[in-house]
Amino acid sequence: MAYSYLSHLECSKCTKAYDASQVLNQCACGAPLLVRYDLELAMRHLRPHEMARRSGSLWRYHELLPVQKADNIVTLGEGMTPMLPLVKTGDYLGLNHLYLKDEGLMPTGSFKARGAAVGISRAKELGIHTITMPTNGNAGAAWALYAARAGIRASIVMPEDAPEITRRECIASGADVHLVQGLISDAGRITNTAAAEKGWFDTSTMNEPYRLEGKKTMGFEIAEYFAWDAPDVILYPTGGGVGLIGIYKAMLELRSLGWLEGGRMPRLVAVQAAGCAPIVQAYKQGKTESEFWPDALTIAFGITVPKALGDFLVLEAIRETNGCALSVTDEEILHWQRRLAREEGLFVCPEGAATAAAAARLAADGWIAHGERVVLLNTGTGLKYPNTFEMGNAPVLEPGDELPG
Amino acid sequence: MAYSYLSHLECSKCTKAYDASQVLNQCACGAPLLVRYDLELAMRHLRPHEMARRSGSLWRYHELLPVQKADNIVTLGEGMTPMLPLVKTGDYLGLNHLYLKDEGLMPTGSFKARGAAVGISRAKELGIHTITMPTNGNAGAAWALYAARAGIRASIVMPEDAPEITRRECIASGADVHLVQGLISDAGRITNTAAAEKGWFDTSTMNEPYRLEGKKTMGFEIAEYFAWDAPDVILYPTGGGVGLIGIYKAMLELRSLGWLEGGRMPRLVAVQAAGCAPIVQAYKQGKTESEFWPDALTIAFGITVPKALGDFLVLEAIRETNGCALSVTDEEILHWQRRLAREEGLFVCPEGAATAAAAARLAADGWIAHGERVVLLNTGTGLKYPNTFEMGNAPVLEPGDELPG
Repeated sequence: MAYSYLSHLECSKCTKAYDASQVLNQCACGAPLLVRYDLELAMRHLRPHEMARRSGSLWRYHELLPVQKADNIVTLGEGMTPMLPLVKTGDYLGLNHLYLKDEGLMPTGSFKARGAAVGISRAKELGIHTITMPTNGNAGAAWALYAARAGIRASIVMPEDAPEITRRECIASGADVHLVQGLISDAGRITNTAAAEKGWFDTSTMNEPYRLEGKKTMGFEIAEYFAWDAPDVILYPTGGGVGLIGIYKAMLELRSLGWLEGGRMPRLVAVQAAGCAPIVQAYKQGKTESEFWPDALTIAFGITVPKALGDFLVLEAIRETNGCALSVTDEEILHWQRRLAREEGLFVCPEGAATAAAAARLAADGWIAHGERVVLLNTGTGLKYPNTFEMGNAPVLEPGDELPG
Repeated sequence: MAYSYLSHLECSKCTKAYDASQVLNQCACGAPLLVRYDLELAMRHLRPHEMARRSGSLWRYHELLPVQKADNIVTLGEGMTPMLPLVKTGDYLGLNHLYLKDEGLMPTGSFKARGAAVGISRAKELGIHTITMPTNGNAGAAWALYAARAGIRASIVMPEDAPEITRRECIASGADVHLVQGLISDAGRITNTAAAEKGWFDTSTMNEPYRLEGKKTMGFEIAEYFAWDAPDVILYPTGGGVGLIGIYKAMLELRSLGWLEGGRMPRLVAVQAAGCAPIVQAYKQGKTESEFWPDALTIAFGITVPKALGDFLVLEAIRETNGCALSVTDEEILHWQRRLAREEGLFVCPEGAATAAAAARLAADGWIAHGERVVLLNTGTGLKYPNTFEMGNAPVLEPGDELPG
């Protein structure tokens, strides 16, 4: 039995194959590269029920991940985040089986740790010494901290407006940090150039094949939670879209392995903010690629991505699974952040709250039926966005005072 | 097989027994009550190796927890946090087997969620409608959010200086929040009075029997990680000390069950900040109780507890296990926060960093030997203490600029 059934890299557009032992970014044609496995061989040796007996981290799926040797794994204990039933919210929305997968319980406080753990582990395996990337904050923090653990140098460029705490995380990790007076797209052009000129490895979204493999494990975990019978609907807050592409890839791989009950795929829903909704616009217009969204602005900073490199893959995943794309306003996001805290005890990030707002809309217009199993993906902890929560006007007492009422 | 082998409550000082189905705070003699189980019965029905096959939360130990019915469990997916080898730090300190258990990966970002999950679940089981408590921030946030999930009302009093983010968590949960111009001890007097006058349930540290049971699961998890062969040393940042008392109680219970290899107990180390070290002082003076620490002040806000109700139990746990108590300075704490981020990729809270500083001292003076297995307990994520990390002076670029160097 192999530790990993990694086979090769394949272009997502022209299907050209590449040797996976090379250090590669994109295909020669400019499209993202996808990691392929020998699933037929894996099928003969692996059984789904074995997974339950393994360690409580995403590395339990190591045969379907790209790292060849266990020794190369760089871990902070990532994965196997909880799936929490939202009973009160389900009752309120008329959904009998509503769940939230809470990626706030990840190292560095966000789902970005999945991509970083697998990406940095594979970078270590391939002998890479310096990475560079643009970020809206959370991905940079995750990659910088995993890079520090691996002894890999990191150069991070982020918008000036990125959440302050993520800048502190990058600085603490010892990474080189630069700010840009602009958006993640501006930061991306700077790191692209630096990678080309300095020989650093560019790990920007979909410009590196392994980050996606980390994100894919969300799909494996969701399927395993439901005893390999995929839920009906998964709602995902979509910026770069890697998580959604990853969940789709996971489900396709599970279906190929014959592990997915009835071969049934979940309907995938891309949720964006009204202030930056290029994927939603492309979906509505029936296009296969998105257009650059000018003047992007939303409190859900993590999904402020005006043009995603993997947009065509997100749109493909939505269409192939009979999913959909919709946007929600900042007001709806703030409302659902509060509501999830008050009703469910969940302190979620704005991006996570966006999926609840979207579920409310889709339940109201009947796109989601009462009896369907629905999963909201909360991509990070609300602790990273303190300013989206109120301080309140708590009364101040002096020692010896009594509580009123 | 019972879901829980809960037997009764027992006074930690006079050993008087109480019926556990009553709503109780302290013993009539004023000392904390401890939860007792029918361990002989548990021994006949339970096997340690069964645990590995169970769910990845602290509820896998349900037979040794006080909740009688699974339906009463209020969960946000708490427990089974990772145990991370600190290879670089171990090399640096001359410790061959150094680990950090990362409680930053808990709901609400701190180990306080353990006490809250078990405490609120049991409160729900006992039909309690309102709780009140003093807090340095993290416990209040955890209890307020779990209470919200359970539909229990919460009244929280915290020092004005408590971390801002924890106030936002309490407000978001819908709890009644009051601030006090003073310390947690001042807040405690206010909630004590409120509980007595209004009939609310006082869940302050060691004034309620079930919080300790949640904290105890850290001990179970540590023992299970090491295949029921306890590590040699566990370092714990000590404020109220419930975690340390809980780990000690866990080890005693495991020893009674015959699960602990050779019946060997770990040496327990209470780590305090130099600016608030009442337990350390009592330990050095050979006393069985601590004295109120005047003008307590440290950046490790969570352990700013001038006089802990369970101080005598902490001192007993240290002495009985041949452990020790020591304090570290704020400078050492800040140094180790940075060092753990840069070397290990860990973004820990000041309290967690204090245990690393203490391990460095104890390794240097030979109290810990090279080959011993040593566990640092990081009680929460650094995200809750953003101001203990630097923003740095990251250079600001404009779109189109290039990275230097």
